Amino acid sequence: MKWQPPLQPPSPSTHQNHSNHMIEKETAETHRPDSDHDSIRSRFEKMIRDAQDSVCAAIEAADGGAKFKEDVWSRPGGGGGISRVLQDGAVWEKAGVNVSVVYGVMPPEAFRAANPVNAAENGNFKPEPVPFFAAGVSSVLHPKNPFAPTLHFNYRYFENDARKGNVKLMLTFFLFKVQKNACDKFDPSFYPRFKKWCDDYFYIKHRNERRGLGGIFFDDLNDYDQEMLLSFATECANSVVDAYIPIIERRKDTPFTEQNKAWQQLRRGRYVEFNLVYDRGTTFGLKTGGRIESILVSLPLTARWEYDHKPEEGSEEWKLLDACINPKEWI
Amino acid sequence: MKWQPPLQPPSPSTHQNHSNHMIEKETAETHRPDSDHDSIRSRFEKMIRDAQDSVCAAIEAADGGAKFKEDVWSRPGGGGGISRVLQDGAVWEKAGVNVSVVYGVMPPEAFRAANPVNAAENGNFKPEPVPFFAAGVSSVLHPKNPFAPTLHFNYRYFENDARKGNVKLMLTFFLFKVQKNACDKFDPSFYPRFKKWCDDYFYIKHRNERRGLGGIFFDDLNDYDQEMLLSFATECANSVVDAYIPIIERRKDTPFTEQNKAWQQLRRGRYVEFNLVYDRGTTFGLKTGGRIESILVSLPLTARWEYDHKPEEGSEEWKLLDACINPKEWI
Repeated sequence: MKWQPPLQPPSPSTHQNHSNHMIEKETAETHRPDSDHDSIRSRFEKMIRDAQDSVCAAIEAADGGAKFKEDVWSRPGGGGGISRVLQDGAVWEKAGVNVSVVYGVMPPEAFRAANPVNAAENGNFKPEPVPFFAAGVSSVLHPKNPFAPTLHFNYRYFENDARKGNVKLMLTFFLFKVQKNACDKFDPSFYPRFKKWCDDYFYIKHRNERRGLGGIFFDDLNDYDQEMLLSFATECANSVVDAYIPIIERRKDTPFTEQNKAWQQLRRGRYVEFNLVYDRGTTFGLKTGGRIESILVSLPLTARWEYDHKPEEGSEEWKLLDACINPKEWI
Repeated sequence: MKWQPPLQPPSPSTHQNHSNHMIEKETAETHRPDSDHDSIRSRFEKMIRDAQDSVCAAIEAADGGAKFKEDVWSRPGGGGGISRVLQDGAVWEKAGVNVSVVYGVMPPEAFRAANPVNAAENGNFKPEPVPFFAAGVSSVLHPKNPFAPTLHFNYRYFENDARKGNVKLMLTFFLFKVQKNACDKFDPSFYPRFKKWCDDYFYIKHRNERRGLGGIFFDDLNDYDQEMLLSFATECANSVVDAYIPIIERRKDTPFTEQNKAWQQLRRGRYVEFNLVYDRGTTFGLKTGGRIESILVSLPLTARWEYDHKPEEGSEEWKLLDACINPKEWI
């Protein structure tokens, strides 16, 4: 029997089948590089699978009817994932929560796309395929009500020959206090640094606008202790439900006009522009031939582009746009 | 008085102001490289301005009420254009017809994006800014009725240090016969070559699908006589109205279901994916800091992404998708 990557959340019995021996024997070229249950890598993987389960359960409960549809997929080059999507619910127009654990070798262009700084600065970029291991949970939650915020979060663990064990986190909407509390538990410098990093990363250069507001972002934290980073990512993952769901409960039935809806749709268009043109995860996925429905599940159900739309100065829409152009200090 | 590029369709009197002397004196770095009325470049420019006028007039007449809104813009680096957009009409949800005449120096990355083959094959790529002159008319017409086809056309004249006077044409929907007739007048090899070129160019690699059907595409026809190419581009430009408007008249009131509309919106989503990820004109525009509203006016008013949507086998939607995956010979 050919060894299959653990696409379902691992149970003790399936774990026992993943001995190093079998792995080395069966997947010589794209070997799963680790099966030690206590390693950071294994514990990160367990954490993201737990996060997927708890976020999906909370979303279904808050939506009050719609259910996630699950797809389990494997990647020919090595690994696979679980995509869960809830579409056209009562509260969310599209909610995706995906886990993927993939490994193999990445083409040099994809390496460059995923590691622009590393490739340019370290000068150690080789035009050869690069072995990698990546595990992550990624979620985009697009509510129907234009006053209810879209949330994006993504926790990743990524290793390649040039970098070991960096952890990446992106949170992009309205979770200031909870984020700051999570950050402050670990390092008082985290929140201000990661808030600015988020404003810089989610920048739509051709618009001179950020895609969204209120997030934190970090990447390549190789100088920190791995145990601490795992705890930090776990803390952040566990705070999603508590931070986001109460806002949705407050906003999901707020009355809105056609104009409010059109504005939401225009901002959805910006989301599409950022993801297709700049987002490293998306461009990496497109270039490595990942599963396209999982990569693009982040796109909203619907989006809108009006020619030369400008919100009226002083309006709520104008204030939001202003904050996307000139980042604010929220706390 | 500083010399200004001719943003309005040139009249004899404004033309007289554009002597070579003034140009050389006033725009040393980004000089308008030509002001000879009889040159291919000048006649191409006149042709595209005439095409913009005639297409806009025909669209307004067929829409029966909505009017184009015109914006005249200039590009800091050199040149400018006229954007005309009709939005939320009776027949078209968004119709854009733009002329631009721009020149200056392009960053090396933009040169590579616009000339991937040239940069890779000729081996003469220099990591220095490259002077260029580009004139074109570009149009995207998105009707409301899902049975009425979207039309894209783009006629461009482009010169840089590496290439002189190539003419580019893209036509992408449902104009088989008229296109073939236009091609056959000039060279019997044109239609089959340019039809295949179109199927190859409008390819969404991450989907293994073409963006649309029924077009022709050509580029870099440097080996042909310039006069002939100008006549050919003019013939094609003049055939747009006769080829497209009758189809719209036939289809604009075809009854449709919510499902038909959702399918149209999903194809609009593919249009967005192609333009933001692959289209050379769009990526060139984003990288050279062009006027963003003119570059992205091609995006539809609304678009849709459903997770893992698959049309029912044998349905009309399925047949269209099949033709986007496996190009057909229409004539």
